[in-house]
Amino acid sequence: MTKLTNVTYDELSIGQTASFSKTFTEDLLVLFAEVSGDVNPVHLDAEFAATTFFKERIAHGAWTASIVSGAIALEMPGPGSIYLKQDLTFTRPVKVNDIITVNLEILEKTDKSKAVLIKCEAVNQDGKTVAVGTAKVKAPTEKLVLDRPSLPVISIASNS
Amino acid sequence: MTKLTNVTYDELSIGQTASFSKTFTEDLLVLFAEVSGDVNPVHLDAEFAATTFFKERIAHGAWTASIVSGAIALEMPGPGSIYLKQDLTFTRPVKVNDIITVNLEILEKTDKSKAVLIKCEAVNQDGKTVAVGTAKVKAPTEKLVLDRPSLPVISIASNS
Repeated sequence: MTKLTNVTYDELSIGQTASFSKTFTEDLLVLFAEVSGDVNPVHLDAEFAATTFFKERIAHGAWTASIVSGAIALEMPGPGSIYLKQDLTFTRPVKVNDIITVNLEILEKTDKSKAVLIKCEAVNQDGKTVAVGTAKVKAPTEKLVLDRPSLPVISIASNS
Repeated sequence: MTKLTNVTYDELSIGQTASFSKTFTEDLLVLFAEVSGDVNPVHLDAEFAATTFFKERIAHGAWTASIVSGAIALEMPGPGSIYLKQDLTFTRPVKVNDIITVNLEILEKTDKSKAVLIKCEAVNQDGKTVAVGTAKVKAPTEKLVLDRPSLPVISIASNS
C-alpha cells in the first residue's frame, strides 16, 4: 500500500515548491457535474458549447480549484493541513482532456498560528496559466505517515 | 425534460438573491475524492479522522466551493455566465450527510464589462456558516432557455 506523508510547519520554508497533475477526462467531467450539481450545457453538451464564446465544451472552473486543494491536501503541506482560505482567478478555459498541473509555492509563514500563505498556479499542457491565486492553510505540526486510502471502483453508464 | 434558464446582466439588480442546496452524501464524497485527487484520510478513513482535530470525517472544503460555483452556473446568473474569480474563507467543517445551502446576493454591477460581484455564503442545516466569500462573474447578455442535460448513471462498487 502506498503511503501519504506531510511537510510539517517547521519543515516548510519560504520559496518551497510542490506540484500535482491531473488529466481532465470526459469521465471525470461527468463526476464533477454530479458532485457540484453544475450540469450547465457548456460543460456537457458539445452542440450547445459550439455556439458559445468558448466554441467547445469546457471543464468547470471549480474543478481546477478542486485539484488546487488536492495538491495542498496531498503534496504540501499534505495530511493534517486545515484549509482556511482560497482565492483563484480563472484566466483561461480548461478543455476536456487537458492535463492540468498545479504548482504551489510557500509565500509566507506565520509562526503564531502555524498558517502558511501558498501561491497556487494551475497550468495546462502547453504551459499556459488557467488559474492563479493564493491559499491560506494551517500547516500540520506533527509528522504523519499514513496509508493512502484506495477508492472503490466508480462506473459510468454509457449515455445512449 | 426540465429546462435551465438564466438571469441576464440587465435583469440582475443589486441585492438580488438566489440559493441552491445539496446533501453531502457518502457516495458523492467518494466521487469528489476521485475528481479532485484528494484522498486524504481525514475525508475517507473514519478511524484516522477520529484522531484528528475534527474528531470525525469531514467533507472536502473545495467541494463546498464547487457547489458555490454550481449555484452561480445554474441559478444566478445561470447559463452563459463566465466565472472570473472566486474567494472563499472556510469557517466550519462540513460533515458527511450535511445539507449545504449556498446563498448568493448581487453586490455590484459593472456596466462596461457586464461583470457582477456576488456575495456567496454556504450554510449547513443548522444555519451555521461553513464558507463565505465573493465571486466575480461575467453575466450573460442573452436570455437562454436550455434543456437540462441529464447525467449518465454513476455506480460505486461497495468497498469491502
